[in-house]
Amino acid sequence: MDVLTVTMNPALDREIIISNFQLNTLHRIFERDKMLNDPGGKGINVSMMLYKLNNTPSIAMGFLGGYTGRMISEELRKRFPEVTQNFIHLDGESRENISILDEANHYITEINAPGPTVTEPDLVHFMKLFNTVVSRTKITVISGSVPLGVPLDTYAILSRKAKDNGNKVYVEARGQLLTNTIKQCCPDVVRPDMRSTNKIMGKEVETLSEYLEVGREIVNYGAQLVVISYQFKHDLIFTPEGAWILTIKDYELDESHLLGTGDAYVAGMIYDYLNTQNTPLDRAKYGLAAAFAKTKYLKKEMPSLSEINANLDRIKVEKLD
Amino acid sequence: MDVLTVTMNPALDREIIISNFQLNTLHRIFERDKMLNDPGGKGINVSMMLYKLNNTPSIAMGFLGGYTGRMISEELRKRFPEVTQNFIHLDGESRENISILDEANHYITEINAPGPTVTEPDLVHFMKLFNTVVSRTKITVISGSVPLGVPLDTYAILSRKAKDNGNKVYVEARGQLLTNTIKQCCPDVVRPDMRSTNKIMGKEVETLSEYLEVGREIVNYGAQLVVISYQFKHDLIFTPEGAWILTIKDYELDESHLLGTGDAYVAGMIYDYLNTQNTPLDRAKYGLAAAFAKTKYLKKEMPSLSEINANLDRIKVEKLD
Repeated sequence: MDVLTVTMNPALDREIIISNFQLNTLHRIFERDKMLNDPGGKGINVSMMLYKLNNTPSIAMGFLGGYTGRMISEELRKRFPEVTQNFIHLDGESRENISILDEANHYITEINAPGPTVTEPDLVHFMKLFNTVVSRTKITVISGSVPLGVPLDTYAILSRKAKDNGNKVYVEARGQLLTNTIKQCCPDVVRPDMRSTNKIMGKEVETLSEYLEVGREIVNYGAQLVVISYQFKHDLIFTPEGAWILTIKDYELDESHLLGTGDAYVAGMIYDYLNTQNTPLDRAKYGLAAAFAKTKYLKKEMPSLSEINANLDRIKVEKLD
Repeated sequence: MDVLTVTMNPALDREIIISNFQLNTLHRIFERDKMLNDPGGKGINVSMMLYKLNNTPSIAMGFLGGYTGRMISEELRKRFPEVTQNFIHLDGESRENISILDEANHYITEINAPGPTVTEPDLVHFMKLFNTVVSRTKITVISGSVPLGVPLDTYAILSRKAKDNGNKVYVEARGQLLTNTIKQCCPDVVRPDMRSTNKIMGKEVETLSEYLEVGREIVNYGAQLVVISYQFKHDLIFTPEGAWILTIKDYELDESHLLGTGDAYVAGMIYDYLNTQNTPLDRAKYGLAAAFAKTKYLKKEMPSLSEINANLDRIKVEKLD
């Protein structure tokens, strides 16, 4: 098994499709297929997308809790039996992310429930399991937030262990958790999660020069590839060789289709890494093509290889500085 | 055990408390107690309220399905171990009713998921169990809708069996299901569920005389007591002795507090039946006092006996015709 994905705080992603969703109104849903329960959490999403893309199997690790956790596990097993589950089970309930998708108004109304609390023994148990698993993989993806009880240097510790075992380490996270990881044991590939923050490495970024500064800082800590979303329409790419700005030509984005684009990006980069000799810049370009292909779909969905490849020519690459 | 409640289509009632709930926005919930999972469905609500009111135990029957069903059962067992569960378990998922309660704007935004489908053997199994249980109870409450696969004459069959076993039968339902029940084996107490319809016995009711006609029609089919909500502010009461209109004096209703008022009404009437020698009219009055006391609470909650009793003096009773 080449790929290990770590999701410390998985979620049950519930997509409820309601046309003309309104406040202070009773909406009755009559069709089961308007109400979907998907295993979620960023690492699990990457595992599912990798399998859909070209049958790449992976091992998924992390914590699952309560009824919601059992539902995540069973739905994942039903749909992706090829994803090997190595989760630690907790008493508290796993997170639940409810997305009410209104295609008529192009709205997503979201409600994210809190996750469980992880105890010291749970974490010790996880670390032991991680040590065993990571000795047999080539790529470790660590993605998303951590539940209560998990210290903010945990990703740095995992990154160190994965690197010690010869793994390429991909991290998508935000806040102090990401800053600690970069400073203490910088991953090979870093994608700051910018969905609900404009801070990277503790600093607010707004102007292009602020973005460039922080991207280069992360490369200086040891990253081989840094990908930062910039003004929705662009991606900034940093490697030890320089910085680039990628832009999709003729770009029209339906904002209600953004669910899971970051995970499609990471899955696209890993597919490229496992199957080509491309440079890190081309790998980022492939990730962006995958993310953009995903936006064709309202729901969390992995586009096909041909859909991704069709987007490659639409990406404009400009060297910066 | 005196009381049997039948809930053919139980639900997981999920109350999510979000101040200033907005469309097209991400709401993060940080406190577990802003997200409650309650066993629900009208019969189950009556069972819980009866126990809360004065420790009246009951037997709860019906169908539970899937993860949602297991969650309903386990939550009910945890909170009300005194409610004896006699449910039939199905593969499909039980209903889920999501209520997003916005106390700032006094809004309830509701999403009701569909229920499972009941097969012929499931129904046969249920009927056998019902026959056994009803021979040992005094009151049978049949309340709410039926899931797919359950014929619309089922409540009539249950009403017949319960009466044959000497039970007083309380039914709260709507539509053809209720009409069939009244015509084929009229329950002792009938409360048409008017929450999403203005039809009773297949006829639209709007004027007071239309209400009076249909209430008397139900009494003529054999009901001892008929309770019909009229213009939110009133209840119309029908017995073989006549018709009355009940009105709460100095009435101010917060519409976001209506969850579970119908079930509080039924629980109040049953409490009164089991503990007093009151007339049917006084029983309805007690039900209304209970329902009105419930509206003090945002969530589905049973008021205390003293809260109910405090409301009795506020109910104006007027004889009609």
